[in-house]
Parts: sequence; structure tokens; C-alpha cells
Amino acid sequence: MLIVMETKATTEMVEKVCSEIERMGLTAHAMPGAQRTAIGVTGNKAQVDSDRISALPGVRDIIHVTQPYKLVNREFYPEDTVIDVDGVRVGGENFVVMAGPCSVESEEQCLRIGERVAKAGAQIFRGGAYKPRTSPYSFQGLGEEGLKILSKVREKFGLKIVTEAIDTEVLDMVADYADIIQIGARNMQNYSLLKKAGRKKNPVFLKRGMSATLDEFLMAAEYIMAEGNHKVILCERGVRTFADHTRNTLDLSAIPFVKKASHLPIISDPSHGTGRRDKVIPLSKASIAAGADGLMIEVHHDPANALSDGPQSITPDDFDKLMNDMRTLASVLGRSL
Amino acid sequence: MLIVMETKATTEMVEKVCSEIERMGLTAHAMPGAQRTAIGVTGNKAQVDSDRISALPGVRDIIHVTQPYKLVNREFYPEDTVIDVDGVRVGGENFVVMAGPCSVESEEQCLRIGERVAKAGAQIFRGGAYKPRTSPYSFQGLGEEGLKILSKVREKFGLKIVTEAIDTEVLDMVADYADIIQIGARNMQNYSLLKKAGRKKNPVFLKRGMSATLDEFLMAAEYIMAEGNHKVILCERGVRTFADHTRNTLDLSAIPFVKKASHLPIISDPSHGTGRRDKVIPLSKASIAAGADGLMIEVHHDPANALSDGPQSITPDDFDKLMNDMRTLASVLGRSL
Amino acid sequence: MLIVMETKATTEMVEKVCSEIERMGLTAHAMPGAQRTAIGVTGNKAQVDSDRISALPGVRDIIHVTQPYKLVNREFYPEDTVIDVDGVRVGGENFVVMAGPCSVESEEQCLRIGERVAKAGAQIFRGGAYKPRTSPYSFQGLGEEGLKILSKVREKFGLKIVTEAIDTEVLDMVADYADIIQIGARNMQNYSLLKKAGRKKNPVFLKRGMSATLDEFLMAAEYIMAEGNHKVILCERGVRTFADHTRNTLDLSAIPFVKKASHLPIISDPSHGTGRRDKVIPLSKASIAAGADGLMIEVHHDPANALSDGPQSITPDDFDKLMNDMRTLASVLGRSL
Amino acid sequence: MLIVMETKATTEMVEKVCSEIERMGLTAHAMPGAQRTAIGVTGNKAQVDSDRISALPGVRDIIHVTQPYKLVNREFYPEDTVIDVDGVRVGGENFVVMAGPCSVESEEQCLRIGERVAKAGAQIFRGGAYKPRTSPYSFQGLGEEGLKILSKVREKFGLKIVTEAIDTEVLDMVADYADIIQIGARNMQNYSLLKKAGRKKNPVFLKRGMSATLDEFLMAAEYIMAEGNHKVILCERGVRTFADHTRNTLDLSAIPFVKKASHLPIISDPSHGTGRRDKVIPLSKASIAAGADGLMIEVHHDPANALSDGPQSITPDDFDKLMNDMRTLASVLGRSL
Repeated sequence: MLIVMETKATTEMVEKVCSEIERMGLTAHAMPGAQRTAIGVTGNKAQVDSDRISALPGVRDIIHVTQPYKLVNREFYPEDTVIDVDGVRVGGENFVVMAGPCSVESEEQCLRIGERVAKAGAQIFRGGAYKPRTSPYSFQGLGEEGLKILSKVREKFGLKIVTEAIDTEVLDMVADYADIIQIGARNMQNYSLLKKAGRKKNPVFLKRGMSATLDEFLMAAEYIMAEGNHKVILCERGVRTFADHTRNTLDLSAIPFVKKASHLPIISDPSHGTGRRDKVIPLSKASIAAGADGLMIEVHHDPANALSDGPQSITPDDFDKLMNDMRTLASVLGRSL
Repeated sequence: MLIVMETKATTEMVEKVCSEIERMGLTAHAMPGAQRTAIGVTGNKAQVDSDRISALPGVRDIIHVTQPYKLVNREFYPEDTVIDVDGVRVGGENFVVMAGPCSVESEEQCLRIGERVAKAGAQIFRGGAYKPRTSPYSFQGLGEEGLKILSKVREKFGLKIVTEAIDTEVLDMVADYADIIQIGARNMQNYSLLKKAGRKKNPVFLKRGMSATLDEFLMAAEYIMAEGNHKVILCERGVRTFADHTRNTLDLSAIPFVKKASHLPIISDPSHGTGRRDKVIPLSKASIAAGADGLMIEVHHDPANALSDGPQSITPDDFDKLMNDMRTLASVLGRSL
Repeated sequence: MLIVMETKATTEMVEKVCSEIERMGLTAHAMPGAQRTAIGVTGNKAQVDSDRISALPGVRDIIHVTQPYKLVNREFYPEDTVIDVDGVRVGGENFVVMAGPCSVESEEQCLRIGERVAKAGAQIFRGGAYKPRTSPYSFQGLGEEGLKILSKVREKFGLKIVTEAIDTEVLDMVADYADIIQIGARNMQNYSLLKKAGRKKNPVFLKRGMSATLDEFLMAAEYIMAEGNHKVILCERGVRTFADHTRNTLDLSAIPFVKKASHLPIISDPSHGTGRRDKVIPLSKASIAAGADGLMIEVHHDPANALSDGPQSITPDDFDKLMNDMRTLASVLGRSL
Repeated sequence: MLIVMETKATTEMVEKVCSEIERMGLTAHAMPGAQRTAIGVTGNKAQVDSDRISALPGVRDIIHVTQPYKLVNREFYPEDTVIDVDGVRVGGENFVVMAGPCSVESEEQCLRIGERVAKAGAQIFRGGAYKPRTSPYSFQGLGEEGLKILSKVREKFGLKIVTEAIDTEVLDMVADYADIIQIGARNMQNYSLLKKAGRKKNPVFLKRGMSATLDEFLMAAEYIMAEGNHKVILCERGVRTFADHTRNTLDLSAIPFVKKASHLPIISDPSHGTGRRDKVIPLSKASIAAGADGLMIEVHHDPANALSDGPQSITPDDFDKLMNDMRTLASVLGRSL
């Protein structure tokens, strides 16, 4: 940590800051400069809670050096984490594809889509039984009935299931039915939900919040891991910017950054990341090339009649094409798909 | 709603869209143009769920005209809503000030701050008993003990209490102790929490999410109102942008926009909105001038030793000065304070 | 400046960085920590060009402490700069209002509007003779003819003239006709234009770029001042964010920040800052309350027939009302208007 | 165009809008709805200048349907534009790599880097002779001497030259020495510069502005084309967002969007797009996978001693590796490299 003093800070102010630092059991290194004094702080093992110091007179700025996350940090676990989802490996060399409809609408719909995506090579089936919707008047999902339908997809096609737990109330039930618990972008900082997911045995699929920095994203994963569940799969799904040609701006630079900062696997979601069907294939290809460990893709056999997110869903035929393209790329990128 | 077709859309595609619209019980008005056809839709009473249409072949864009919110809409309730918080009026001519520490730290701290802010003219006391923190390793609040301390502040100084319910688990308890239930920016789209707050009798203080559009913000209020609780107080607290000189960018244009679009009162929070103590006073003054119905301000008698958000808290002496400034402005702006 | 080394940086890497710093005539203070080493740098009088260092092996991050601007910095000129525009004072206690149409359309239009705004109390007339337009097919301004019309407004009503120089070609002519040279948001980093304006005697009205940080904004002013022209008037006119209810997001926190960091006056432009007529009055009032030194307002006697920016122009009658409101506020805020 | 009226708009207001539209030679289609009236407009060949209409009483919103750009529009030129740069094809199947230092520092430096990038397979050499720098005190480039050095690189290695014209003053000289004239992100809306470049014979390399929407980006290209120069190469180089882990957020979704909306080739610049050396390779790979027509990459033989942008430059050895990776990807993506 570095403390930058105001130009006009007095010697007393500098000394007060130094003594406060020493009181916290740390070491202060005052560095008087031409314009102002900076004070280096060493001896901390984690990020220092700097609020006390920043409120002292004469302090202009506090600059943190130590990253605030521990368990997610690659400095603590240098190897790539590979998560075993009942035989399907997420992370490492495997490139995993999660596919399915935005919402679970009916058994027929899910079986139809499940059959096609399994055949095309997806290993995990996605589909929302509980849907977080901007409007209270929109379709909110089938609930437990939806979870039962997802179980049938697993039985019939051997696909693993990932589905969203939208609150702590439904988390237990989701954990019972699903292989992987999804936590959505709107809930990335719903700490009660993160903690409860951290006490489950299921892997957790955590989406980046719409305006989350990568530090905040990794801290959200830290919440889960701090409760004991180390099986966290991260997901870049686009962030909110001024750009108006896509629903969100898919931030693919997050992938190499997360891979360097953390040992956790990271998946890309170009369906939400762009919100437009015809952008899903190019950005899926870009995702594997950028180093993503997998994809989450919305597939619907009849997007025009989908109950949610039709415009960003691709058809099973498009998905076949996508998987072919991905396999070609995987082969030259050293990934198995 | 307006549907814009691709330049190359065929007559069949246009007809399919029109028949789909008719099937939904609405009326389609095809308008062939030089470059492309647009289709106007009328007959809808609320916003049409356009996903089905946007997925039809040849459809390039869907443009909504009807606003998606109903109960929050000023078109439905033309008068300003004034919320009576046990004798304190929020909205209308009254300009209300909510003040207190970021976190409830101890009884002594709250009584000390409560006495000062009451004397200076605040009518509502704020203080977090449950704190949503980015890091799992930071101070998370005193919990129920904190709520009991807040009750003592109410008893002693006659201040009403606003405090945050960070999840559905603690909502009942918060509703029992507090006058107003706060829902924080991170929870603005925690729909389970919104719905549960909508089934309480307490007024709800709803903060705008960090990257929420005003439509999303008003839709979050709609979630609460749709459950029967019409006592919603909105709060602008800054949004996330590229600007790096403040913690958030306080979007004061939200105030006149919300006042026009909705009948609900809106409060400004310049403490979170800027994150810097010396910006709180200028932006408080700007808030009342822009038409806000009140302020939420963080005050701490010893910011250097505050357990959270010290850098954005002002001292009781600063608060006295702020209240004097606000009273002067209120007098010329036709607000009672 | 602080240099943060990678966790795995070797002693050699640290030594190489230190010797590079010494080679630059500065002093290095290595601070080995539990996780990593940080190196403090002192002895610099201006911001160090850190590119060489950041490229050395083992360097993870460079943190600057010294601000990069000099002449604009309040640390160098502690008093408020007050700019005399031929008798009209910009800065200090005076609150100045600049008003007029977006574009100069005709002599009749300008005289009509000029008469009204002068009568209402504006001291400076605005109007674009050269217009930067997004489309090459839009009205681009009357050019020199427009400048002549502006001169007539000055003669007739005693208003000073501010108008935009869109490029270095027209700058000389603009400087000849106008009292104040405006540099628009799109040109905030057009360094050739800034430098040329810095060699003129006219005060320069510099608008913040659409996505400029305050550091970049002040550095743009530094470009002008470094050429010898110290008469720079800054202008906050809104920045680009995800928010879609306004054309731009007016960042009023910029005002107290600039007032603290710099001695230069700063004006607010709520017409461009919101892009909506009915938001101009509330945000004008917010601007003076936040500490702005003046306003720039678009006024048109017939907004429905304005050749540009009609939706954000207010009528002369609205302007009368605005000036009344501003005078009331100025009286309690210690500003003369 | 669709005009949305206020809920309370009177019949007279609707009629006034319709008659104004007819007066403009267009056709109005009034569509009265349950809540409000919308008016469809047809008959326009280009985007209507809607300012007059939006200022009429009762008008709530104007929604444009027709895209404002013409010559850049793929609807006008359905085939991919392929630009011949003295034998090097930009666009179509060819995947072109532009590489070189940020700034031209010396002949030795450029020859050294030029030799390496030519050998590795680059076809175009980049290097700034004129540098737009945030600070007036930073290195501003070698000027004409730099252009002469670039010419020597062309002679010696057969590389074509792309270099930036930072203003209209230097444009002629840049056009004389360089094969391709670069217009930088800060100048994307410097219309005088765009127009002057539009009167040159050289192809123009146009970078997306830091906060430009794609419509604005394509309109900037339209400025160049409207002057007669149809040889425009677009470049995505990252946009400014809240994200703080990269210097800019590389918006790869722009690539498929531009390819659909326009016939012009588009290049990706991951060096500026990320600002971090170790992110250049993953995002280069992502760019070709997303459909980019080429790359612009900063290469420096000694990044630690580069006079600008050292942290984002890769070494010639890194570049060799990058080119190998790109060739492998190009082979499976149907691109020749």
C-alpha cells in the first residue's frame, strides 16, 4: 500500500499517518519528495483496510498493491483448476460446451433441443427453470416442474445440467436437481446467495455482473470459496457500455486476464454477450481463440416462439455448424472438444 | 411498437409478421417505404412481449413506444406521491434529510451521531446493521444488535430509521425494527427481495443499481408496487462510468427525468454518488436545485476510525454547515426543510 | 511514482529497475514486502515518463503520484483565475451566462435571439458559424457570413461573442471576429488546434471531450497554456455513458473537482449535457449550486425550425424564467449575476 | 421514421405534425393507439432531419429507421471492398498484418524492426512520425525525418507504409511519403481532416474513436468517401468503459457488425485495444476468429527503451510466435496469410 500525502501536508500529519500504520502492526516508509511525501506500507499479508488511514488529515490518496483476493488467486494455486462435473471436465485442456434454451418451456421443447445439442457434441445442458426478468409481468419460469424436465434431459441424453438459482429460497432445490448451480449476472454481488452456494457440493457457475470490474468478479468467487466450495466456474457474458449495436459488450480481454490472475476456469457466453443471433458464431470462435475454457450458448428449435431471449438464440442447425467450426479451431489450438 | 424489416425482406415475411401480430390480438399497419417496410402495431395496452416477433425472418429491429411500467408511471397517477413515515413526509413540498453513519458500529457511536444530526435538522437516521461488502473478509455489520441500537436512536431523538435489508432472510427483522426498508444498489434487481419488500407495510427506499437505466430502475420499483406496497422512495446514488475522479458518477439528470416519468419521490445520495467528503456539500446543493425530494448523507463523528466508508463521511460540524446551506437554498426553491 | 514488482520478481530484476531509476537522476526506495517488492521513486519534479520502466522484466504496475499538469494546477497558481473578456469577468464571484442559438442561421434570427438574451441578462452570445456535424450531409454552418452576423449582435447589444473554431484553417478568422474562441468536445484532443489557440490573444473556451477523464481535460488546457495563452475557460458538457435517458450524462462532480485541482474557471452546458429542453432549467440550477462559474445555454425563438439541436434549445420566454431562477439562486450563493 | 406523441397530445398537435411531414414531401401515417398516437413516416430516401419535428408541441420521441450512411452501406455495395495498396490486398480473403513500433525513433530502430517483421510475414509497416500525446511535454515524434526513415523501410524490405496524419497541416506530407494515411482515434470526428483525406488518392486507415458508436464510426468513413476517396480501411482499437484491467475494452463484436453493415474492410488493433503486452497474442487470435481482415500490432526490439507505449509493444521474437499462431488459424479459417 502506498499513501500519497497532500502537497501542503505538515510533518505532523505525516507522522500521524506513520504512527497509525505502526499501530496496525505494519511498517511505514516515509519518502519525502520535491512536491509531496509518499508513505510506503509493508508487512501486510492481505489488503489493508485503508478506510481509517484515508480519513486522516493530509492524506490525498491510497494506492493498493496487494490484490484483495486469496483463494481465487493463481499466486496461491499455480495450477489450472479442473472441475469434474460427474465425468465432464471443466478447465485444463478440455473445451466444454453448454447449450440449451434460455428458458425451460416444456418437456417436449427440452427433449427436442437436448437431443440435438447432445448429438452435436455439447456436454452440458442449460435452461432456466427460474428466470430473473426485468418486468414483473414477464414469464418467470416453470420452477420445480422445469427442474424435473431438466432431470429428464440428463437421463435421456447423458448431458449434465446447469441452471440458475435466482435466490436463496430456490437454491436447495436447484442444488438437488442440477449438476451445476448457476448464479446470474444480476446476483453476482448477492452475497447471501454466494455464501449459501459456497456451502453446497455442486460446482458453481458464476456470471460476471453487468458493470463488475474483474477484481469485483474474482472477489465474488472468493465469497463462494471462502465458505469451502472451491469448484467455481467463471463466465464472461458482456458488460454494459455506451455501445448500442449489441445488448452488452463482450469483454474478451477478461479471459487472458482471469487466466493469469486466477487458477479458475472461465467460460464465454456470446449469446448474452451480444444479444444477436448472427453474432454468436463469430464471437464463439473468438472466445476459444482468446483462451476460454468453454462456451455457454442459447439454442432454440423455434426462436420465433421462444418465451424469452429469442433474438439471441440460434437454431439446432446453426449449432451443428458452430460445433463444426469450434472443433476445427480446437484442433489447432490444442484443446479437446 | 414499430417493427422494422430488413431491406431485402420479402412480401411473405412482412405478411408473416402481420399475421403473428393479429394472432396476438393486436393491429398491424404495414408501411412500405423506399428502402424497407416498417410495421406499426397498435391495440396493445401494455408493452408487447416482442421476443416472438423479433425472431421472425426478415425482422431487423423492434422499437417500443409504450413504457413497460404501469403503477410507477405518472400517466397513471398524475399527482406526486407523498409518503408518510410515521409523521415525516417524503415527497411533495417537504425536503427530507436522512443522515447517519455508513455502518452501525456501537450504541455510543450512533447516539452521538444521532444527537448531532437530529439537532441539525435531519428527520431520518440512516445506518447499516447488515453491510454488503465486496470482500468476504471485511466487517459485515452488527446484525440484530445493530437494529436494536437504531431503535434506541429513534426513541431518544425521535428520528425515523432507514436501514438496509441485504437479503430475504433478514428482511422480516429489518421490517420489524426499521421505519423504512432500504434496498441497496447491488440488490436493485434481486427480484425475490423486491417482491418480499412489496408484501411489507413499511415504505421501501430503493437505490438505483450501478449500471441501471432509468427504465430498469422504475421496473424494479414496479416489482415492489405490483405486490401491493405503493410506498416506494427512489434514490439516485451514482452510476458506473469511465470517469475516475469519483467513485461513481452522480447522475442528477435522473431527478427531473424520474419526476416527469413517475409520481414517486426521489432522493439523492451524494456520499455514495461521489465517494469523496469534499464533494458532498456541493453536490447536495446541486441535488436540491435539480429538484430532489431529499438527501441521504453519511455522517461520522470520527471518519478516520469509521469501520466502513470513512472517506465519504462528513463530520457533524460539516453537517451543520450543510444543513444551513440547504435551508438557505430550500427557502428560495419553495421547499420546506 | 511507485513501482510494483511481480511476486516472482528476482532480486536482479529489482536491482535493474532501481539502477534504471538512478540512471534517470531519481532516487529509488526498494520496499520488500511479504508478497512482493514495491519501489518508491522520489526526486522527480514532474511526472516521470514511465514507459521505459514498465517494460522492464518483473514490473507489474506503475502508479503515478505527481499530477501530469503544471500550469493549470492550483498548486502552482493558488488564486482563482478571473478572465476579463473586454469588460465581462469570467471566474471569481461573477456568474456569467452565455446564450444563443446552436447555429447561426440568419441575421434576423441572431438579432432576434440576441435582443432577448441580452435583455434577460446574458453577457455573452453563443452561436455556431462552423458546425461539426456527425453526417457530411447535414447543415455545416454559414462560415464567415455567420461570423459577420455575430459581430452585428455584438455591436447592437453589447454582448461578447463565443463561437467555435472547428479546425486550424478557420481559427484565424474566428479569432478575428469573436471575443472567445470555442474548442468543441470532439476537438478536445486535437493538439494542433489547441496549440494554435494557445498562440492567440483571445480567451479559449474548452469543452470536455465525450469520454475524457478530468486529467485528460486539464492536460488539454495545459496544451493551450504551454503556448502562452493562460486565458482558458473550461466547460463541462456531459460525458458518454450507458445511460439512455439523456444524450449525455452531465457530470456535475467535475465542477468541484476542477475548482480544487485547478485555478481556471469552469462553466456548465446543460443544453448539450442533457439534450432535452425540459431538463435544461433543473440542471442549470444544479450547476450554479455545484459551484459552476457560469452557464452556456442554447436559446432559439423557434426551436421547431432550428437547423440544428432544436430539441435541446429553450425559447426566449423559458430563458427569461431561467434567468430569474438563476438570479434568485445567485443571491443566496454569493454570486453576482 | 416513427414519431411518438405524448399521451396527452391533442388532435391538433397530431395534425400539425402530419402537415409538417407532408410539407417536407413525405407521407405521414397516423396510428392512434390505446395510450397514445404514433405517426409513421415514409417516402424518405435518406434519414430525415428530424429536429424540426421533435421540437413541435406534443412530440415525445423520434425513432429513426433509415441508416444515416450511404456510401459505406453494404446495402449500396453488396460486395466486400478489397483495397489494393500497391500490390498488397486489404480485404477479401487476404489477412493483412501491419506491424512496427509505436513511434519512429531512429533509422536504426526502424530498419531493425522492419527487417524482423518483414521476415515474419508482415506486409505493411507502421510507425508514428507525428504522435498525438496527452501531455505537451511528451515526445511528439520526429516529423518529416521520421517519414524519410519510413521510406527507407519501404525501399529496403518492400513493406508498405501506414503512418498517422495528426492534422491537416501534415496531411500532404504524410500522403507523399506513406502508402496509407492513418487517422487516429482522437481525430475520428476531426471532419476537416477527414475531408482532406477524402481528397487524397491514398487509402485511409480510420480508427474508431474512444467512445464512438458504430454509426458514428461509419459516418466518419462516409465523410471520407463523400469526398471521392472510397479506399477506407476501418480499425477497431478498443473503447473506453469502466473496466480497469485494460487500457481500453477491445470490442470484437464490432467486427461482425461492420462486416454486415458495410462493405469496407476492418482491422483489429489489440495493442491499443488492451495496452498490455501479454494480452496482444490472445486477442490477435480472437480477432481473426471473429472475422477481422487483419491486424495492426506494435513491435519493438527493446520495449524497455521505447519512447512511447513500451508496455503494449511485443518483441520481434513474440511477433514471430504470433505470426506462426496466426498462420495456423488462418489456414483453418479460409484466410490467406
